Amino acid sequence: MRQATGMLTIETRRQGLAEITRDITAWIDAQAMRQGLLTIFCRHTSASLLIQENAAPEVRSDLEAWIARIAPEDPSAYAHDDEGPDDMPAHLRTALTQVQLSIPLVDGHLALGTWQGIYLFEHRRRPHRRTLALHLIGE
Amino acid sequence: MRQATGMLTIETRRQGLAEITRDITAWIDAQAMRQGLLTIFCRHTSASLLIQENAAPEVRSDLEAWIARIAPEDPSAYAHDDEGPDDMPAHLRTALTQVQLSIPLVDGHLALGTWQGIYLFEHRRRPHRRTLALHLIGE
Amino acid sequence: MRQATGMLTIETRRQGLAEITRDITAWIDAQAMRQGLLTIFCRHTSASLLIQENAAPEVRSDLEAWIARIAPEDPSAYAHDDEGPDDMPAHLRTALTQVQLSIPLVDGHLALGTWQGIYLFEHRRRPHRRTLALHLIGE
Repeated sequence: MRQATGMLTIETRRQGLAEITRDITAWIDAQAMRQGLLTIFCRHTSASLLIQENAAPEVRSDLEAWIARIAPEDPSAYAHDDEGPDDMPAHLRTALTQVQLSIPLVDGHLALGTWQGIYLFEHRRRPHRRTLALHLIGE
Repeated sequence: MRQATGMLTIETRRQGLAEITRDITAWIDAQAMRQGLLTIFCRHTSASLLIQENAAPEVRSDLEAWIARIAPEDPSAYAHDDEGPDDMPAHLRTALTQVQLSIPLVDGHLALGTWQGIYLFEHRRRPHRRTLALHLIGE
Repeated sequence: MRQATGMLTIETRRQGLAEITRDITAWIDAQAMRQGLLTIFCRHTSASLLIQENAAPEVRSDLEAWIARIAPEDPSAYAHDDEGPDDMPAHLRTALTQVQLSIPLVDGHLALGTWQGIYLFEHRRRPHRRTLALHLIGE
């Protein structure tokens, strides 16, 4: 049994879901393990992780529109706006989703379902440099 | 230290929470470990995992009614409806909850609290065959 | 490779977010590992875990106010109220957040970002004694 750790930097271009499945699988492949557990940890409070459908693009736009309705940009609703109107909603949307995901590795492949992709969910309006800590344990 | 992986298939009968604690503990018992970490990974984007109270059944019906209010079936709200009006809300309810849970194994038992049960949350109206990837590491 | 398990008891004083980062890092330090994976598991259905900003206190009060709006205390909305009006909303707020978090350990430190703190989110109005199961695997 052994383990590997790494840091993955993702440059987000816009608010919303950015698929990172290939970035993750490239790192996994480089570790040359067959069975194990991958953990992805997002080191931010205004961006998060989500596994969602990677086929129909409307799923992602509908999801982005819905989260903007339940955790809206509404300056009258929040005391915290140090970095603008998208600041506090970014924290709420991070709380609603996840900053950590663990996925089993089986026969050298992540155990993702057919329609599952791994996404980094950028909640700020401007592009950001985001860092994910990766951990893999197995053999 | 060693690890075990497995696939668990659950046939859901209806939309809502289906307790799977016994299915999980049966698999755990078969691995004959004493200390470790269990990870459950749901390989779908329209069903999810949740740990909730396993005593009062009203907790589950109230939770199902509430999630239907904040991620409603509302054809006018979504562009994506390839598989009917319960399609897009199923993705939203999956995003609101989790597709992955990790639970420590202590002295041969999952470290669940007294009132905690593990549930598979079926978000589609029709019965589905759902697959969970299981990973256990320990000794 | 080795593993350690432990139980951490937290006495919550009020409804809302209580930072537990120091409690967690003290336990981590006592295990004297350099690389690994920490898992925190909250053994309750009316309290949860959240990673959030540990700088501006308004982030936490805004987050507490927002979650009280989307999972409100509203006796007319729920059948379950065995323990009072804050009973069912506590279950909903737990479902919205997480009962489990895993964080990589890198060079002897948790891979938390600069602004990330670990919080226990007490959803009941009265103080409670909460138990967290901890698991660390690594070397």
